[in-house]
Order: sequence, then structure tokens, then C-alpha cells
Amino acid sequence: MKKKVVLAYSGGLDTSVAIKWLQEKYDSEVITLTVDIGQGEEIEPIVEKARNVGAIKAIALDLRREFLTDYAFKALRANCTYEYNYHLSAALSRPLIASYLVKLAKENNASAVSHGCTAKGNDQVRFDLTIKTLKEDLAIWAPMREWVMTREEEIDYAQRNNIPVPVGKKSPFSIDLNLWGRSIEAGPIEDIEKEPPEEAFQLVVSPEKAPDRPEYVEIEFENNVPVGLNSNRMNPEDLVERLNKIAGSHGVGRSDMVENRLVGIKTREVYEAPAATVLVKAHRDLESLVLPRDLFHFKSLIDEKYSCLIYDGLWFSPLKKALDSFIDSFSERVTGKVKIKLFKGNLTVVGRSSPFSMYQHDLATYGQNDSFLHNSAVGFIDIFSLPNRVYHRVGHGKKF
Amino acid sequence: MKKKVVLAYSGGLDTSVAIKWLQEKYDSEVITLTVDIGQGEEIEPIVEKARNVGAIKAIALDLRREFLTDYAFKALRANCTYEYNYHLSAALSRPLIASYLVKLAKENNASAVSHGCTAKGNDQVRFDLTIKTLKEDLAIWAPMREWVMTREEEIDYAQRNNIPVPVGKKSPFSIDLNLWGRSIEAGPIEDIEKEPPEEAFQLVVSPEKAPDRPEYVEIEFENNVPVGLNSNRMNPEDLVERLNKIAGSHGVGRSDMVENRLVGIKTREVYEAPAATVLVKAHRDLESLVLPRDLFHFKSLIDEKYSCLIYDGLWFSPLKKALDSFIDSFSERVTGKVKIKLFKGNLTVVGRSSPFSMYQHDLATYGQNDSFLHNSAVGFIDIFSLPNRVYHRVGHGKKF
Amino acid sequence: MKKKVVLAYSGGLDTSVAIKWLQEKYDSEVITLTVDIGQGEEIEPIVEKARNVGAIKAIALDLRREFLTDYAFKALRANCTYEYNYHLSAALSRPLIASYLVKLAKENNASAVSHGCTAKGNDQVRFDLTIKTLKEDLAIWAPMREWVMTREEEIDYAQRNNIPVPVGKKSPFSIDLNLWGRSIEAGPIEDIEKEPPEEAFQLVVSPEKAPDRPEYVEIEFENNVPVGLNSNRMNPEDLVERLNKIAGSHGVGRSDMVENRLVGIKTREVYEAPAATVLVKAHRDLESLVLPRDLFHFKSLIDEKYSCLIYDGLWFSPLKKALDSFIDSFSERVTGKVKIKLFKGNLTVVGRSSPFSMYQHDLATYGQNDSFLHNSAVGFIDIFSLPNRVYHRVGHGKKF
Amino acid sequence: MKKKVVLAYSGGLDTSVAIKWLQEKYDSEVITLTVDIGQGEEIEPIVEKARNVGAIKAIALDLRREFLTDYAFKALRANCTYEYNYHLSAALSRPLIASYLVKLAKENNASAVSHGCTAKGNDQVRFDLTIKTLKEDLAIWAPMREWVMTREEEIDYAQRNNIPVPVGKKSPFSIDLNLWGRSIEAGPIEDIEKEPPEEAFQLVVSPEKAPDRPEYVEIEFENNVPVGLNSNRMNPEDLVERLNKIAGSHGVGRSDMVENRLVGIKTREVYEAPAATVLVKAHRDLESLVLPRDLFHFKSLIDEKYSCLIYDGLWFSPLKKALDSFIDSFSERVTGKVKIKLFKGNLTVVGRSSPFSMYQHDLATYGQNDSFLHNSAVGFIDIFSLPNRVYHRVGHGKKF
Repeated sequence: MKKKVVLAYSGGLDTSVAIKWLQEKYDSEVITLTVDIGQGEEIEPIVEKARNVGAIKAIALDLRREFLTDYAFKALRANCTYEYNYHLSAALSRPLIASYLVKLAKENNASAVSHGCTAKGNDQVRFDLTIKTLKEDLAIWAPMREWVMTREEEIDYAQRNNIPVPVGKKSPFSIDLNLWGRSIEAGPIEDIEKEPPEEAFQLVVSPEKAPDRPEYVEIEFENNVPVGLNSNRMNPEDLVERLNKIAGSHGVGRSDMVENRLVGIKTREVYEAPAATVLVKAHRDLESLVLPRDLFHFKSLIDEKYSCLIYDGLWFSPLKKALDSFIDSFSERVTGKVKIKLFKGNLTVVGRSSPFSMYQHDLATYGQNDSFLHNSAVGFIDIFSLPNRVYHRVGHGKKF
Repeated sequence: MKKKVVLAYSGGLDTSVAIKWLQEKYDSEVITLTVDIGQGEEIEPIVEKARNVGAIKAIALDLRREFLTDYAFKALRANCTYEYNYHLSAALSRPLIASYLVKLAKENNASAVSHGCTAKGNDQVRFDLTIKTLKEDLAIWAPMREWVMTREEEIDYAQRNNIPVPVGKKSPFSIDLNLWGRSIEAGPIEDIEKEPPEEAFQLVVSPEKAPDRPEYVEIEFENNVPVGLNSNRMNPEDLVERLNKIAGSHGVGRSDMVENRLVGIKTREVYEAPAATVLVKAHRDLESLVLPRDLFHFKSLIDEKYSCLIYDGLWFSPLKKALDSFIDSFSERVTGKVKIKLFKGNLTVVGRSSPFSMYQHDLATYGQNDSFLHNSAVGFIDIFSLPNRVYHRVGHGKKF
Repeated sequence: MKKKVVLAYSGGLDTSVAIKWLQEKYDSEVITLTVDIGQGEEIEPIVEKARNVGAIKAIALDLRREFLTDYAFKALRANCTYEYNYHLSAALSRPLIASYLVKLAKENNASAVSHGCTAKGNDQVRFDLTIKTLKEDLAIWAPMREWVMTREEEIDYAQRNNIPVPVGKKSPFSIDLNLWGRSIEAGPIEDIEKEPPEEAFQLVVSPEKAPDRPEYVEIEFENNVPVGLNSNRMNPEDLVERLNKIAGSHGVGRSDMVENRLVGIKTREVYEAPAATVLVKAHRDLESLVLPRDLFHFKSLIDEKYSCLIYDGLWFSPLKKALDSFIDSFSERVTGKVKIKLFKGNLTVVGRSSPFSMYQHDLATYGQNDSFLHNSAVGFIDIFSLPNRVYHRVGHGKKF
Repeated sequence: MKKKVVLAYSGGLDTSVAIKWLQEKYDSEVITLTVDIGQGEEIEPIVEKARNVGAIKAIALDLRREFLTDYAFKALRANCTYEYNYHLSAALSRPLIASYLVKLAKENNASAVSHGCTAKGNDQVRFDLTIKTLKEDLAIWAPMREWVMTREEEIDYAQRNNIPVPVGKKSPFSIDLNLWGRSIEAGPIEDIEKEPPEEAFQLVVSPEKAPDRPEYVEIEFENNVPVGLNSNRMNPEDLVERLNKIAGSHGVGRSDMVENRLVGIKTREVYEAPAATVLVKAHRDLESLVLPRDLFHFKSLIDEKYSCLIYDGLWFSPLKKALDSFIDSFSERVTGKVKIKLFKGNLTVVGRSSPFSMYQHDLATYGQNDSFLHNSAVGFIDIFSLPNRVYHRVGHGKKF
């Protein structure tokens, strides 16, 4: 009996060629998995293509809800932003897809799984780490990392094997898209001194072309999860899709960065993440309202580690789980509404409220209802200043 | 001989009343200090007013250069942003002014210094910490913290003592302004659910009223200090003033936050910091280009601690000095140019370059000149994944 | 009706005098609370003394189990050690006692609580923070902080009020004792250049007088809690008492430090904590066996913050709760046995085992069964070294 | 002309065989480098052996001073202890040796360097990272990582090539030794449940066999560097050698741990580091005396990162350099004397003094000279408790 391999299949040229290549090189039967996580393509034709190219089974799964609930919204609690700019859209999807590869490998008695990642990206690490962690004895075949075909040879191979080759000029960009955002790299993006060309963007209009009137949106959070938009309760997919449209139409959610890959190189990356950008901004503002200072400040360490772990592919790790538990402990308090103004690429929080608001007007006001104990300040300062006073005092007059 | 006190004098009602009050309550002679740090007021009339009200000496100092070079630009190296929003304009000016109070107290044989801070703000802490650290035996008299006058009694007191009282309705806001930014608090700002009224703003136009065409600016850094704007070398004051104008005219630099004060309360604060906002964004982008990943990530801890120390008034402390030394060690490398697009409140980095750029096109490209060692990735992943594989392996099949 | 106050009552002179003083100064009725947390005194005579001095009610509670289970063993999970030396014995007991003061105040309709802490220690902060957090409207009366009696006046006051005054010379030390350890301060300890006198110690014999033969103990942990000693399952009190005796008899558990108090001063503190010292050492060793590197390293941040929060009296805080949740998430894995050798003040881990051990002999060995993939190392190093290579490369030959 | 390679040569079987192997496999001329860093062997016979086996040049360097001054004492400033136990002796020596390999390669026009590390240890990483960073284009030939000889084949190869093979039974341990400590691994050490056999130790006597009387030593630090022992100024080598003898003779400096290697595995390691153990303990105690709380606490992050960087071979990195600068900034203050008691494996600090001591007896004492402002505490507590009070207040009575 032939070995079986489960391949993460996007329908593109690389993974289509991979079907044949896996059959030939490993003398194996190929099962494909195609998931819908909001990449905006019809899944059915992709499945059909997989079968036509030679998959013995072509599986399609709608994982949009699971992607948002169990991955993106978990990351949102940690204000997921890698290196101040990247909302981790692709990074969040990899452990989800990889965990389904493992699941299907078990169900179909496959001895290997396969993905189309190259040897220099982060995604290979994210796929492989999840797979190796969840089922260490599965083989991982990564054609794009192993084969030595040039683009021309690949097309030639495809044509010889009756694999459809996309007509027309290939896009100069390398793209990844799901509900949480869109990554654009390669081609003209590689010139870090130049502004990315307008055709690189798809989700977010140019701020110059955005409407001349601002739009306000109100995000509602309950137990640390976004549950409503403009006073309408919505399921995760609808909320994120709607917010992607609204924010994107106002030019909100582009970013442009030089990024440190896990594999040691710097690359230039451009992102569009309209919903994620709005949600993170709103979420952090709500946290500032309901969490005390020491927790809010310490949490920035947790957030940074969380984003780094996701980026590095360590989703399935006890450290990530521990960070989640940290956040669980106060999630009930992260409940409330944040009002955001969107205008020509610009995003401003303009109001917020929460049943757990720690903003106490009677303490904060300079007006008549002030209840702050004024004479406490002097005592506080006396003690707070003591160490540096002593440090200076014992310094023998040397310049500080 | 009467005791002498050096008072930080702004020319406003509070510190004017304080002149008289210090004379009466402490039977002392009052020397005033008024500094120009870019608050946009004529200093001479303020000095004259001090003398008229009764100061035996009224000193004026232009500290704009020192404020930027030794305070704001040092903080810029640490991407100074407290709680993701506040660029620390007022917080940075307090230790500077306080250190001059101490200096003048020594020169004039004064036994006390004085400031007009209230008991519930951060500024009293910042003043007092600096003063107590630099000269522990100086008395600190803080009229606004000590007296019990209401606003009406204060005006009454002023009129009885021939102190000019501003005519017209008092601004509902409490304002602080210098070259690094403008803080707005109190009054309508205290309603955290409402957008701040348009009249609160002064440095940054409403994005809606900003020009319909974007403007590009290029910031040049040398040894971790901004030295040029749009290919013109400029001194610090000119650069920051110019950038304040340009960015402010495009609606860039407003922020709105619920902030954790050092004294334990949350307040709502609105800020305008056009130049600081642009400079921090540009600076961080340049750092991402020239620093390796481990340093860039670890530095975020340094930055956060740095901002927190400034906010808390701990400028003159050995910990702050140690953080400065940390940054000194690689400052030479933070040299280069960053191009920024400003448009209707929106700020995007669109290009960057540096003689120390770690972006290596031959490593990053997916094109023909790729020099990355592809087979290293598999070895890397094998080792990087090992701990979690073992952790899962020894978990006795329990759910991860 | 008179106001009632609940006083934390130790039976010593200070809190005995406080009974009368609270009655007189506040015209109140005093209810005393005396808890057994292993301070090694008979509780009944203390209760009787409280009644004799004038308490309208004298309550005694055995909180030894709760102290260990809910406080000390929670801290043990975080390897509780403040500034590398102090196992937080007193600091852990304060929130427990304070929470009972609040509970009893509620049950007895008291409007105030009281404790015997001075104005310069940490304990007042720990008491007050817990009380203010749990019931903000309770008054806190702290006689030792408020009154101005000298020692002589206090004795005089006691004699006038028929309060028994201890005969004989007062101990020069200030002592705090419970199951988790003993603190010694003041008197000769204040000379930081001198070794503490032998009579300062009570739980731990001088290493010179310890037995000439080592003793081995084996600690068993289950779900992150110590449950057994030398293969005997024990309840918390018995385990800790027994371990205090064994380790103390071998001279293990003394420490001597200059400590940073929360109130800004440095003091010299000497501690005896035989059981805590052994348990923390064993616990950390077990963690090193069952946790992966990234979690083990990150947890050191958690541990340090945890110890600091306890020290600072922030036991009842959402940040402490979040740190607990972090630790909960992997506590199941912290299960196993650690063997410790005790000898003349010396404590060495000499063996460990766990059903969740991540030590894999086939990976670690240099012998025949080596299963490590040797060629992975080269790939790993190639990628791991990349950033510093590039950093050096672009440095224009400047000295590193 | 033949290629040249510079080999780090210890005189043992592996690197002796490597001389021949490098000649054969790479058709190269071998230059050997043997350094004295206090491993306690005669260097001259090793040099002679290198020549006999076939080295065209055999270089010997006494690097003891440089090793201590530029490596070990720098690490001491950061209280160098990896995972609470390992003082980094071998880890500190690798970048030193590797930097000399690079230096000699340049001087001798060699195109490669070579070391005897295996594929599973940390040392290969430390060597390779330093070499690749300092001279990226040098080839690295690592025979032990590349060849596939068993022990028997290696001996056979040696005998065929007239390379002296040590007679007698091979030690079961793998040992590394220098002035900063001795590492013992492999063989019986691999059984983590068993106490290491007594013959594993060489620098530190068994505590049971140590003298029955304690010995006191006083370490003097100047500008963060140890400069004196028992009131005698000493150069680094003499000080460390002397302290190794004294502490070792009292059984001080053994440790036993399960350690996380950089390459993803856990190993059991046993160490002897008598001088390092005493110096770190003394150094940290001195820091606690002269540094203010916030700096002392933040520095623990710096220390931990520093140890981790050394362990991971990142000595020559800008992050390590930045951590050094952090420490430089206050090093002047780390000046003073610490008295240590050594007794049967036990190490206690018993006294300390410094011209920069922040211990202020008038602040710390409970006696007559108390100068602490007692009423400041209440104000401090009022403000310090505010956030948690509010957090609890707005919690709607839910359990905390």
C-alpha cells in the first residue's frame, strides 16, 4: 500500500505542482486540504482542481469561525502587534492549518504532511513547529524547500503534467490573505527606500481616495472578546468582515516596515489589516480604562512575548498557554465600548465606557467634586524620593 | 536677613498670587525664574509682571536648546511614549526647570524653592523629586498644594494685592505647552465618553481641515539625533519648530487617552505633539533597519522603563543614567534617513536608508540574487522545535 | 453605642497597651484577634490576657493550614525569594491576618481595625493595603504609628493601667516568627559590618554545631505543591514543621542581607527559614527538569514580580492573581521528587525525578544511544549567527 | 600553495587526531593554538606534541590575565549565573579563544579555523558565532562534528598515524577547566537521580572533609572589579587562584543541575567554581548596599540577559555591549568590602562596607537617632493603595 501525505493546498501553481511532485518523488498518494479562513476565494473550484491534478481526496473546511475565535481574538487580547506594526495575520493562520494537517493525517493514516513554504520564510517554521509538536513522527515534505526547479522549470513541469498554469503576467508580489489581514512582499517592495506602489494594496484604499467625511464606529467588548459593532451584536466573521470593509474604505490599516524574520534576515513587508488595526487600538484603550497601572504596565511584557511567540510559530507551547492564563484571569473586566473615528487613513479613539471603568470622576476632576486626599501627596513624595536622595547624598559631591 | 525663595514663574494668576503669598506666609523674598522652552509666549512681559507683583529679582532664561538636546532628544532615543500615547512633553520639562531652580537657589543663597503644582498631578512629584535629589536641604514651598483658597478667594486675594487678574472667561482647559508638545486636560475633557471639543486644539489642525494633498518629509538622524529635515541641516529648535508646523498643518500629532497617573488615579488627557510624533515614528523605523533583532526586542524593555522613569519624575536617577548608557553604546549606528508621508492626520513611513542598514537585499530577495543558505532552515527548525516536541512527548497524551 | 475596633493582638506589650489606648483615644470597644500561624506560642494565655486587659471579645484562630496552603505554598510556586535572600515569611502572613481583621470587622459591625505596626516598616503597608482593598471604608487605627510615647512612657502607661509588663531585660532584637520563617532585626543587627550574634538565632543551629554526618531528605511535589517528605505523605503543617526541624538541625536556612524596604530605606535583616529554603531549592530544581527553556527563563520574570508584589503588600491585587493563573497553567507538570543533602549549613540537590521529566537520556548522552540529529547544528548555527554577522559586516570595519 | 588552518589545540587525543585529519581531508597545513587560561597543565609539552604530530607551527599564549579581566570579571559585574547555578566558566572562555583563532588566521593568512567541539554541545555554537561574527569568510572545520569515527576507529587512526594514545582507562567524565571553574559531564553524571561520584570533583573537597573551623575572607572591590583579598591587593590571576584554593578547601563551590542547552536538550551538569561562587555572592551583596532599589531590581533583568547571552555564545554582539555600558554607568559606586564566612561547603556573607553605602543608620534604626519622617507613611499608603481600592470598588462585589 502506498504512503499517504496530506498537503495544504491553496490552488496556486506551487501547490498544484507539488501534488504531482509528491506522487513521483515519494511514491505517495496525495490528500489535499483547503481551508477557508477568509482569503476571499471560492473554495469549490480549488477542490476540483486538486482532484483534477491528481489528489485522491480533496478536503475543504470552513475554519473562519475557529480562526477568529481561537486564534485571532486570543491574540487580540494581547494586542498582537509584532515589532509595532504587524498584526500577525499569516502567523496566526499557520498553527490552525497545521493542526488540521495533523488531524487529517491521523484520520487518513497518512505518514506525512506537506506544505508549500520556502526555506527562507517564517511560515515553514510555523508549520513545522506545530506539526512536530503535535505529532512528532509525521514526516514533513516541503517541496518548495527541497526541489531545485527554477520558475521556468516549474512551468515546464506543470505543462508536461497537465497542470493548469495561470495565464498572463505573474503578479510581482507575494501575497497572503485572510480575515485578519493581508501581507504583501517581494518585487518592488524589496526596494526599502521607495513607497510601495498603489497596486500592491487591495483591502485598504489610498487615504487620498477615502471619503471626505469621517465615520465613527463603536466596538463593544465582552469578556475580552469583540461582540458588537455600532450597537449590533455580531458573530465574529460578520464583525471582522464588516469592520474590514468600513475601515478599509477609510484608508485605515496599512503599514510598511522592515521586519526581523525568525530566520535571521530583515525583509521589507507591507500589510493591510483594517479590522485588526481598529480592534487592537480599541482593545488597548479599553484596557487602559479597566486595568490598574501595575497590571497594565506588566501586561506590555506579556503582550510583547505573546506576539513574538506567535510570530516564531510557538503557538502550541506551554509558554503561550501560560500567557493565555495570565490574560484569562482578568478578562471579565475587559468589557465595554470604545468609539473610534475613521478618516482618510487616520484612526482616533474618541470615547470609551465600561461597567468596570476605573476612571473615577470624583478622583480625577479639578472641579468641585474632588475627593482626592491632597495631603497624601507630600508623604508619598517624601518616601518615593528617598532612595535617590540618599544615592546623591552618599556620592561625595561627584557629578550625578 | 529675610529668607529667599526661587519660584518657577509662568506669569499666570496662580504663580502671581504665589509671589505675594510666599512673601506673607514665609516672610521671604521672592526671586522668580521664567524659562523659555518654546511655550510660545513673550518672556519679557512676564518678567516685568513678576517685578510688578513684588519679586526682588526676576530671571528669564532661554532653555530651548538645552531642553531639546539634553532632554527631549535623549528621550527620543528611547522612543519616549508613555502608555502608547503620551510623548512626555511636560514630564520632560520639569526636571530641567527644577534643576535651574536648584542652581539659582544656590547662586542666590535661597533656602527654598517654589512651584505652582497641585497635589494631585504628576508635576509636583517631578519637581520635588528633582529638587530633593539635587539639593536635599532646600525647602519646597508649593502654594497650590498648601493653600485652601477657592478660585473665587484666589481672585479676591489677587485684587486686594493689585495682582492683575485675567479678564474674560477662564479657559475651561488646563494647558501645558513647550516645543515637544501640548497637554490639554480638565473641563470638557473629563467626560471620557465624548470627543474633545475642537477648541481644545491649537498645534494640530483637524484632519478634516488639513490640505487635500499629502506632504512628504525626510528626517535625517546622525548618531541617534535628528539633524536634518528635507535635506537641510538644522539646529534642534528650528528643526522641531518647523516640523511642528508641517505636521500640525496636516493634522498629525493628536492623541486622546485615559492615563495612569503616578499618584494612583486615572485621568483623561489629550495631547498635541506633531514633531514628537513624527520623530518617534521615524526613529523607531530607523532602529528597525540598523539594529539586530535581539537588541531591537530587548530595547523595547529599555524604552518602556525609560518612559516610565521620565513620567514618574525620576530623570535624575542612576537607573535613568544607566539606560542612557545602554543606548549610547550603539548610537553611532542609528544614522540615516527616513521618509514620512503626512496626510490628513495620517502618518506613514514610506522609505528609509542608512549607511549601517542591516537590510541585505541579497539575503532578503526571492529573486535571482538570493544568497540565503536554504538547507540551514531544516537544521534550525529541528533544534528550535526540540523542547516543545519533548514537552508534548512526555505529557502522557494529555491534551495540550 | 460605642464604636468597635478589631485589633490584631500578639499578646506583647505594644498591642496590650494598644487595647487601652484604643479604648481611650477612640472611645471604642476592642475585639482582639490572635492567630496561630506557627509562631510557637500557646494561644490560650494570650487570649486570656486580652480579656484581662479589657478586650470585650478575644478571638483565636488556628490558621496554620490556610497560611501554608493559600499563601506560603502559592509563593513557593514562584520560588518566593525577595532580593535573592528573603523567603517572605512575615510578608506572606500580613494579608492573611488583615483579611481576617476585615472579615471579623464585618461580622462584628466594627467600624475600624487596628494593628501594631510602626511607620517605617513594610508591615503597615501590607496590613493597610489589604484592608483598604477589601473594605475601603474601614478606619485603620495604628497606635504605634500615631502615638508619641517613648519606651519608658509606654511602660509607665502600662503600669498605670494594670497591663502586665514583661520582666527582665528586653530582647535587643525585633522578631517575627511563623511556620515559613523567622525575621530578626534591630539592635546589634543594625551594625552591617558585624556578623550577627549567635543568640539572634533560634530555628537554625550554627553550622559549626550541626551533626558531623549529612542527612538526605526527599521532597515530593504533586501539582506544584509539596505533599511528601522522605516517602511519607504529610499534611502541610506536619511537612513544614518536620522540615524546619530537620534542616534547622543541620544549620540550613540562615540568611543575612541588606534589604530594600518599600518605604525607601535600606535595612539589615537576618532570617531563618529552614523549610522554605529547602523547599524553594527543591522546587526550582524540579522546574528545571519539567519545564522547557523558554518557559523556565520567562518564569524568572514572573517569579521576581511575584516576590516583589508580596513584599510590597499587593497580595490582593489583579496582577498577583494573573501571575497565579500563569503558574496554574502548567502546575500539573510540576510533579516529582527531589533529593537534597543537608550538611552543616550546606544544601545540595543531588538527584531528581519526575513522570514529566524532559531530561531524555537518549538525547543527552554522549554514549551509544545518542539520538540527536548531529547535522542540524550547522544549520542552526548558520541562521542563529546571521544577525550579528550582518551587523559586523555593515559596520565599515569599525572596532566592534 | 596549501591552504592553512588554525586549530584550537588542547593536546588531547581528539585535537591531536584532528591535526592529521585536517591535513588529509582538506590538504592543508595546520597551525595550532594552545592557550593557558588556568587549566592547570604545562603548556610546553602540549606545544611540542603539536609539532610532533605534524603542526607546521605551534603557538602558545598565556591569556590568563585577559581571560579574567576582559571576560570573567565583566561577567562578574552581571553576577553571571546561568539558570541559578552555572558560573559560565567554559562559556566565557570560548569567545576569547575563538577571537584568537581569528586573529592568528589573519596574521598567518589562513583560510580556515578549526576546533574540537561536537555537534550537540554549546561550545560549537560559541566558537562558530564568534568566528562568523569577527570574520565571516573564514571556513570553520570541526572534525568532531564532521567525521564518523567511533572511539575505536579514532584510536586505530591515531596508532596508524603515530599519534600518542593515552594509556589506561579513559576517564568516564568529560571535563573543562579554567580559572573560573570546572565542568563535569557525561558518564555517571548522566543518571540524574544519583549523586555524582566523589571522584568527579577536583577543585572542591567534599564538605565532609573540609576543616572543622570556619575561615573568613574579605573581598575588596574597586570600580566593580575585585582587587583585594583579606586586605592584600592582588592581580586578577593571583586573587582568583588563591580564592579557588581557599574556598575549594572549605568545600565551597560545587553545584549540580539539569541545564537547558542552547541546542534544545536538557543535560545534567556538575560544576566546581569556588572563586566564582564566592565572588558572585560577595558582589551581589555589595550591590545591594550601594544601588537604589529600582536599579537593583531592574538590573536583575540585565544580569539574566547577560548570562544568557554568554551561555548562547553571543559575547561579540551589540546587545552584550549595550548591557556592559548599562553596568559601566554606575560601576564607580560598586566599591567596598564584603566579608564572607566559609565552612564545610557553606558560604555566608557576614559583613559589608562601602564608601558609597546607602545604608543610613539614622534612617534604618529603631533606636534614638531615628530620622525617618513617620507621618509620610500614611500619605504614601493612601496613594499606593489607590488603584487596587478602585479596582475592587468597581468590581460590583464580585469575589476578588
